[in-house]
Amino acid sequence: MAPALVLVALVALAVAASTTTVMEASAFAVECNNRSTPGGGGTVVGNKLNVHLVPHSHDDVGWLMTIDQYYVGSNNSIQGACVMNTLDSVVDALAKDPARKFIIVEQAFFQRWWAQKSLTIKAIVHKLVDSGQLEFINGGWCMHDEAVVHYIDMIDQTTLGHRMIKKQFEKIPRAGWQIDPFGHSAVQAYLFGAELGFDSVHFARIDYQDRAIRKADKGLEVIWRGSRSFGSSSQIFTNVFPDHYNAPDGFSFEVLAENVIPVQDDMSLFDYNVQERVNDFVATAIAQANVTRTNHIMWTMGDDFNYQYAESWFQNMDKLIQYVNKDGRVHALYSTPSIYTDAKHASNESWPVKYDDYFPYADSTNAYWTGYFTSRPTFKRYIRVYSGYYLAARQIEFLMGRSSLGLFTSSLEDAMGIAQHHDAISGTAKQHTTDDYSKRIAIGASKVEKGVNTALTCLTNSNKTCVSSVVKFSQCPLLNISYCPSTEEAISATKHLVVVAYNPLGWERSDFIRVPVNDENLVVKSSDGNIVVSQIVEVDNVTGNLRKLYVKAYLGVATDKAPKYWLTFQASVPPMGWNSYFILKSTGAGYNNTEHVPAVVSPSNSTIEVGPGHLKMSFSSASGQLERIINSASGVDLPVQQSFLWYRSSKGDALDPQASGAYIFRPDGNTPTIVSSSVTLKIIHGPLFDEVHQQFSSWIYQITRLYKNKEHAEVEYTIGPIPVDDDVGKEVITQLTANMSTNSTFYTDSNGRDFLKRVRNYREDWNLQVTQPVAGNYYPVNLGVYITDEKYELSVLVDRAVGASSIQDGQLEIMLHRRLLKDDGRGVAEPLDEVVCVDQDCEGLTARGTYYINVEKLGHGAHWRRTYGQQVYSPFLLAFTHEDATSLKSYNVAKASMMDVNYSLPDNVAIVTLQNLDDGTTLLRLAHLFQAGEDPKYSEVAKVDLKKVFGKRTIKELTETNLSANQKKSQMKKLNWRVIGDTESGPAPVKGGPVDCRALVVALGPMEIRTFLLKF
Amino acid sequence: MAPALVLVALVALAVAASTTTVMEASAFAVECNNRSTPGGGGTVVGNKLNVHLVPHSHDDVGWLMTIDQYYVGSNNSIQGACVMNTLDSVVDALAKDPARKFIIVEQAFFQRWWAQKSLTIKAIVHKLVDSGQLEFINGGWCMHDEAVVHYIDMIDQTTLGHRMIKKQFEKIPRAGWQIDPFGHSAVQAYLFGAELGFDSVHFARIDYQDRAIRKADKGLEVIWRGSRSFGSSSQIFTNVFPDHYNAPDGFSFEVLAENVIPVQDDMSLFDYNVQERVNDFVATAIAQANVTRTNHIMWTMGDDFNYQYAESWFQNMDKLIQYVNKDGRVHALYSTPSIYTDAKHASNESWPVKYDDYFPYADSTNAYWTGYFTSRPTFKRYIRVYSGYYLAARQIEFLMGRSSLGLFTSSLEDAMGIAQHHDAISGTAKQHTTDDYSKRIAIGASKVEKGVNTALTCLTNSNKTCVSSVVKFSQCPLLNISYCPSTEEAISATKHLVVVAYNPLGWERSDFIRVPVNDENLVVKSSDGNIVVSQIVEVDNVTGNLRKLYVKAYLGVATDKAPKYWLTFQASVPPMGWNSYFILKSTGAGYNNTEHVPAVVSPSNSTIEVGPGHLKMSFSSASGQLERIINSASGVDLPVQQSFLWYRSSKGDALDPQASGAYIFRPDGNTPTIVSSSVTLKIIHGPLFDEVHQQFSSWIYQITRLYKNKEHAEVEYTIGPIPVDDDVGKEVITQLTANMSTNSTFYTDSNGRDFLKRVRNYREDWNLQVTQPVAGNYYPVNLGVYITDEKYELSVLVDRAVGASSIQDGQLEIMLHRRLLKDDGRGVAEPLDEVVCVDQDCEGLTARGTYYINVEKLGHGAHWRRTYGQQVYSPFLLAFTHEDATSLKSYNVAKASMMDVNYSLPDNVAIVTLQNLDDGTTLLRLAHLFQAGEDPKYSEVAKVDLKKVFGKRTIKELTETNLSANQKKSQMKKLNWRVIGDTESGPAPVKGGPVDCRALVVALGPMEIRTFLLKF
Repeated sequence: MAPALVLVALVALAVAASTTTVMEASAFAVECNNRSTPGGGGTVVGNKLNVHLVPHSHDDVGWLMTIDQYYVGSNNSIQGACVMNTLDSVVDALAKDPARKFIIVEQAFFQRWWAQKSLTIKAIVHKLVDSGQLEFINGGWCMHDEAVVHYIDMIDQTTLGHRMIKKQFEKIPRAGWQIDPFGHSAVQAYLFGAELGFDSVHFARIDYQDRAIRKADKGLEVIWRGSRSFGSSSQIFTNVFPDHYNAPDGFSFEVLAENVIPVQDDMSLFDYNVQERVNDFVATAIAQANVTRTNHIMWTMGDDFNYQYAESWFQNMDKLIQYVNKDGRVHALYSTPSIYTDAKHASNESWPVKYDDYFPYADSTNAYWTGYFTSRPTFKRYIRVYSGYYLAARQIEFLMGRSSLGLFTSSLEDAMGIAQHHDAISGTAKQHTTDDYSKRIAIGASKVEKGVNTALTCLTNSNKTCVSSVVKFSQCPLLNISYCPSTEEAISATKHLVVVAYNPLGWERSDFIRVPVNDENLVVKSSDGNIVVSQIVEVDNVTGNLRKLYVKAYLGVATDKAPKYWLTFQASVPPMGWNSYFILKSTGAGYNNTEHVPAVVSPSNSTIEVGPGHLKMSFSSASGQLERIINSASGVDLPVQQSFLWYRSSKGDALDPQASGAYIFRPDGNTPTIVSSSVTLKIIHGPLFDEVHQQFSSWIYQITRLYKNKEHAEVEYTIGPIPVDDDVGKEVITQLTANMSTNSTFYTDSNGRDFLKRVRNYREDWNLQVTQPVAGNYYPVNLGVYITDEKYELSVLVDRAVGASSIQDGQLEIMLHRRLLKDDGRGVAEPLDEVVCVDQDCEGLTARGTYYINVEKLGHGAHWRRTYGQQVYSPFLLAFTHEDATSLKSYNVAKASMMDVNYSLPDNVAIVTLQNLDDGTTLLRLAHLFQAGEDPKYSEVAKVDLKKVFGKRTIKELTETNLSANQKKSQMKKLNWRVIGDTESGPAPVKGGPVDCRALVVALGPMEIRTFLLKF
Repeated sequence: MAPALVLVALVALAVAASTTTVMEASAFAVECNNRSTPGGGGTVVGNKLNVHLVPHSHDDVGWLMTIDQYYVGSNNSIQGACVMNTLDSVVDALAKDPARKFIIVEQAFFQRWWAQKSLTIKAIVHKLVDSGQLEFINGGWCMHDEAVVHYIDMIDQTTLGHRMIKKQFEKIPRAGWQIDPFGHSAVQAYLFGAELGFDSVHFARIDYQDRAIRKADKGLEVIWRGSRSFGSSSQIFTNVFPDHYNAPDGFSFEVLAENVIPVQDDMSLFDYNVQERVNDFVATAIAQANVTRTNHIMWTMGDDFNYQYAESWFQNMDKLIQYVNKDGRVHALYSTPSIYTDAKHASNESWPVKYDDYFPYADSTNAYWTGYFTSRPTFKRYIRVYSGYYLAARQIEFLMGRSSLGLFTSSLEDAMGIAQHHDAISGTAKQHTTDDYSKRIAIGASKVEKGVNTALTCLTNSNKTCVSSVVKFSQCPLLNISYCPSTEEAISATKHLVVVAYNPLGWERSDFIRVPVNDENLVVKSSDGNIVVSQIVEVDNVTGNLRKLYVKAYLGVATDKAPKYWLTFQASVPPMGWNSYFILKSTGAGYNNTEHVPAVVSPSNSTIEVGPGHLKMSFSSASGQLERIINSASGVDLPVQQSFLWYRSSKGDALDPQASGAYIFRPDGNTPTIVSSSVTLKIIHGPLFDEVHQQFSSWIYQITRLYKNKEHAEVEYTIGPIPVDDDVGKEVITQLTANMSTNSTFYTDSNGRDFLKRVRNYREDWNLQVTQPVAGNYYPVNLGVYITDEKYELSVLVDRAVGASSIQDGQLEIMLHRRLLKDDGRGVAEPLDEVVCVDQDCEGLTARGTYYINVEKLGHGAHWRRTYGQQVYSPFLLAFTHEDATSLKSYNVAKASMMDVNYSLPDNVAIVTLQNLDDGTTLLRLAHLFQAGEDPKYSEVAKVDLKKVFGKRTIKELTETNLSANQKKSQMKKLNWRVIGDTESGPAPVKGGPVDCRALVVALGPMEIRTFLLKF
């Protein structure tokens, strides 16, 4: 804020404001950009009810139509919506009258528009932004979902938008505007609120019971402390709308909308209605004031894709402001969330406090929006895969240094940003729109892959020539269904397969690499020439069939036969570095084939125990089902059953037509049907791992892998096509039933970050009326879910967003796939019935995925959850090439790390961003992985020695910023809020202090994320 | 046109045009206002197909919503439409790019908007108009209907708009733009085309068979000679669109419309479609070129209430022009009807010629739009009543001179202008909109009545004081249903009733005045004190019942009892002057009551003859029906029957769902049902007239009056409520069956002016495929319809617009009322089921009206039709007051005329306008009433001595103008057109020459209308 503005602000204060507290200058400066104009009115009035009219349009970056269709207004037999019109006409309308204001929210749209505009228009927009008429709010690429989005994706998409705004306008958004997402997360509150530097967050959707009580108690507006680790130090003023985010009834002025009642103030025409409209306005305002603290209320003047012709809104609002203020009973003004928040703050009111989150969201008795936690599971996984990949690729881009490759990873930024939208990853967009999201990721990913391949060529070449004719890398995105042309190719005596594994974690790491091959006589050598133990397993039929169908469907490639084997070996890779493994044709000498190819064992006892290491599982040979998990190292022995079951999707009933759908989970009956209680079992023992194959039914197959050195079971399920020939939609869960007394309690993460305590049939904020005993207890899970009793912790980590719950004590259930035959009436107007088609032949979509089970002694589960969770999110990035054994070894930097040799990040810290920016700086984010009190050892301050992290590179400049890197940390402003009966207790939050510019050691307190801009 | 512009034009011609003929300067000047701009393109290209994009919005001044609702965009659950948005956004869009153009059509909307605009906006609009970006086209108050509108109303509404445009912008519209009316009249072509100074007229709706043939023959564009009297001297270039007036398929860019395919030219977004769109454009253009002469085609870029956000259109059209011209196969440009017409003219093409009119209009086999000729008959009458009234009132306003009363008649101009709209008087608007039209007329009329009352107070007062406390006039709009409080009041010895009759005709005139009274002992005295013969007839029950219901329904006044009598007397009034009659309580002495109160005669013979004068009618006492009409003076004796019948309205059938509705007449079967063949008869003989009362059914009552001095029968019918309890809609006709061989031929007028010959099942322009033998032979009638045989002419004049035909030789039928139960699917979405309600009690609407029957020898009917037609249109304006017989006679100018004593217009001339304008001038229009060859005596040049017309007033200045008085006659420009095989023969049209400024005698040739601006 320029000092001059502050001066003006103080003068304005003396004239207009009647507040008694001293507001911070930053707040004033924004408010005082709004010139008060005749008839308009940009300032609040102290002694009246102030009605803040906030003109906005809610522009989904894809939903019923694709983002580009929405932008240009095509395909609009589906929906009349054209964001280009909104932006064009808003700018015209604002330019006409300096009193008018508008907020712009979704940068994905704004940047499309901005790129097309002439310099003349850009100059006008600059003026409007500078004067405060046009204010960027939220400012991310999209309005991300809050249930099923990973926090790293949230950071990325927010940073992308915020930095654009900063670069183009030197502006910093001040408010969160999450008006539409279907429930609100704790991480949103503290990380994407307070840690972004926002003063407030605003939204519409909370549970209908919660809303009713909050209205009665004037408790819609709260101070939200989303982080138990940070408490009041990361709180945010939160404005929950009394109704929806549209304008109050009768006050929408969207062009061509049916419900418009224009203010007709021309006495020479019929139907003059000024007094009537003023009376309506005042009555509506007073009704809202009755459920709101202070004499400031907000009217969200807009709706989905509104302001198609902005003048229609502004002309009417101009008149309302003029006549309402002339009437004098209440005061109307053009406002923004920032101005509104400043006014709230200036009122010196005390506010209720709110902890944790606003999940699950229900809009009526049988309408819990908990189905979308799982909807479109393969799409959710697709996004998650590229989230991790994008992180790794940016590291590789950084390692390359500024080169002719440019910032090739930016090819994914738009696609990944859009994908986080609350109708994208949520699974609640139409199929064609979902296809569009996937297509965008596919296009972006293939460009990034190319960049990575080239970069690896350079990096692995000691003389840094990047001639790809020498070494040509490829990658295999469909590895999970055994499709990888590079590894399937014949390996000969003269042609070795090279596997490069890049490790994006800050730790040295040993993980298993599994590639499809067609030869059982292979050996794996490490870069130092030693033979590495490997294991061959036949590719099962289920995978072979999936491969055939999906490679044809997705790549258009007909594949005659599946590869014969999975070749698995354990790779060890340094932190933020790579290692290479060479797969050669076995010469027959020196290789132990009996160890290499494992035995398929026929069960002989009634119980079969598997597991080559400490972790064992025992299965019943009679039922084929899991009976028990034992960890001999930690002394755990816990009876656990695992089953697949499905809920019958409601199609609505006589009392309530609400169906289960893309958004809503409404089971028809609360008891799920078991898929099979007698399961076909196949056991494979091997030197590296054992596999348990379970065929639950013709459409559910599961492989459990227990590795030699791992503390968990890796469970790969293949579900689908879900049969619906009985005309019943099905929502499939995996259920773990342990012999544990869990006291209705379970824990789920918030966006892959904080774990929150969940209590069945209970809400902390109000006395819950239970109407949906299953759907109403579902919570979103991105990282994992766990239960505890007085002895044990049973944890499950997931590879994508899912819905999960604990419906009975000792139980955990995770919804893995859904196939529905009815739409649930929330707009998408399609049943969630995903199919995969080859030509005209379609069948229900099959979902394949993995979850990970761990049992620990009480209090010891966090380390595995946090560190292995990081590995699930950030797997090795694998690239393949072939080496001509006869030629000169062109492949000569087989192993390397960015970090100093022997340096590694502590177990409780991850690098969540390392990215070269287009302004020459490098963005670094370090995240502490543990909550306060979560682990006796790791919930402590952790230190990172940046000099060692960056090895040979020298940091010339380091600036700490807020989370989205659009302002210096030191310049972040914070409003102080009074809270009713503040009972915050316990130790003050621990945070790392300033970074010494010479030492360059960064300290991080529990859950802390620190963001830096570096110059090397 | 300023000379400077012409110069510029010539330069432009040299550069851009490739035409070979020399165009007239006026045409060029307009064209050259259009600057050619990069990417846009305002000029045509010679060697390519030019696609003229004409941006327009068709804005009905009322239809589904009222005009003001359309203007402000309220009530739009019915229809999304807001003309304010159109005008606001068009101006914004034009201001952005000088290449863009738009045409503004309806002044009723534009003037509402203009009145609200700031000086800034007005300045911008002036600039846009001056540069030719914004062009006023058509320019009347509305886009009048052409079937059911009286030519005087057409003149008035056009003049109102044209003079506004002239006054505000100094502009003269150059083209007719009647795109929507449902058929097109001959009078429209020559009078509202050529005589306005238009170069062209453009429209969409012609018969589907006609269109198909014209497309095949490239005959859609023609030179139209609508007047047989004027021939080529009043011809106009006529552009009939190949389809409708919307944009070609795929080229509508209306905001939020479903069918929009935006031009997506941003390669960074998905769905880039420039080449595809250019290909579509070229293909569509070539298809149209294949049915069009010359290399110029017009695309009407708009539709009903389009350009709600004009930028959406213009951005896409900008792109189309840019990419299509870059492609180069065809040339696209922003254009207007004027530019298009100039281009057509410059092509030097020869055009087909077209005579007469484009009625009736059918859009498919069973969809003849001939129902609306009659739809809402009482509303049509209401407008016609105030058309005549408005003419008379403006004369009275003129007689008053410029006074403190101001131009009080302007209170009706907006309402009357709107009422001529093609969905207003046509009866095709929704009921609530129709009510709005009526309300506007009622409000306007009551203001004008007040003005007239005050003016009469002044005019009848010799010392010109206008104190209304002395003499207070009132008028009785509901006289036709015997409601007139002034005359119903008790007349006593001390309180006389004064009736002032104003005669708006240019001739001395004797007409019968009929007022309801409650006393049979009354005498009528003329202003010279003589007793005037009068006649008393009891008010019949049908009228009494109507009065009770409708006075309550329309005025909210409960009336206990009807007046007892109709008092009738003959009044003689000088031209454009008034006379007063005094009605006194009879003293009993000297009055011949036997003559005064006529006898009700019971029929004794089988045939009853009635008629006190030359005209006699004979009725059958057995059937109660008319048998014969005799005119003893002219030696006519013609057997004629008259019946009421009804067509069963089709509800659609298995082959075609088309129902009969507000627009469309589709009888279910071609033979109407007779209402009754046995009619109750009542005969009243009296000194002034005989009355024949016929009760045809419970819902049809008819009174035929034969007056002493009149050559015609006056037939007053009362029809309704039409019974529909049988669930059958009915369309009621009166049918005259004469013993005449009429050879399929009958004659109907065009807008009350020219009579056109109609031949059953025949069209002059093509070989008609008869699909609807009744509906397809209906024609609109405003003045009258007649048939002839070798001896006689049987003529009927009407008091409002109706549909009429001659379905059998010797027959005439007139549709008088319709009540329908189904909508006909042309948008209004209401069945035409008019009801009248008191509180919640509703019944079908009753229509009361009058037609006039005349029989003459062949060749002698015109005089009666023309002169009595004038009297039907312009009845006496009656005002009433009471005089206190004891007080001083305040009422002292009992009789007067504007004209010189003894001067009168010739029988073949009428004053159709005499109106004080707000610029101090007076508008005078004189109309010759006969066509060339219509009458041996009257179809000759007539002369009017203006000095004598204006009596004591002195004409200081006289300027002859075009019809709408927006340009001097001498400066009117005319394009010359080449016509294919021009066969025009016969004598050259006769027109009156220039007016000598000293003599001030105006000569008028047959059908000529001359317009003057006078200063006194």
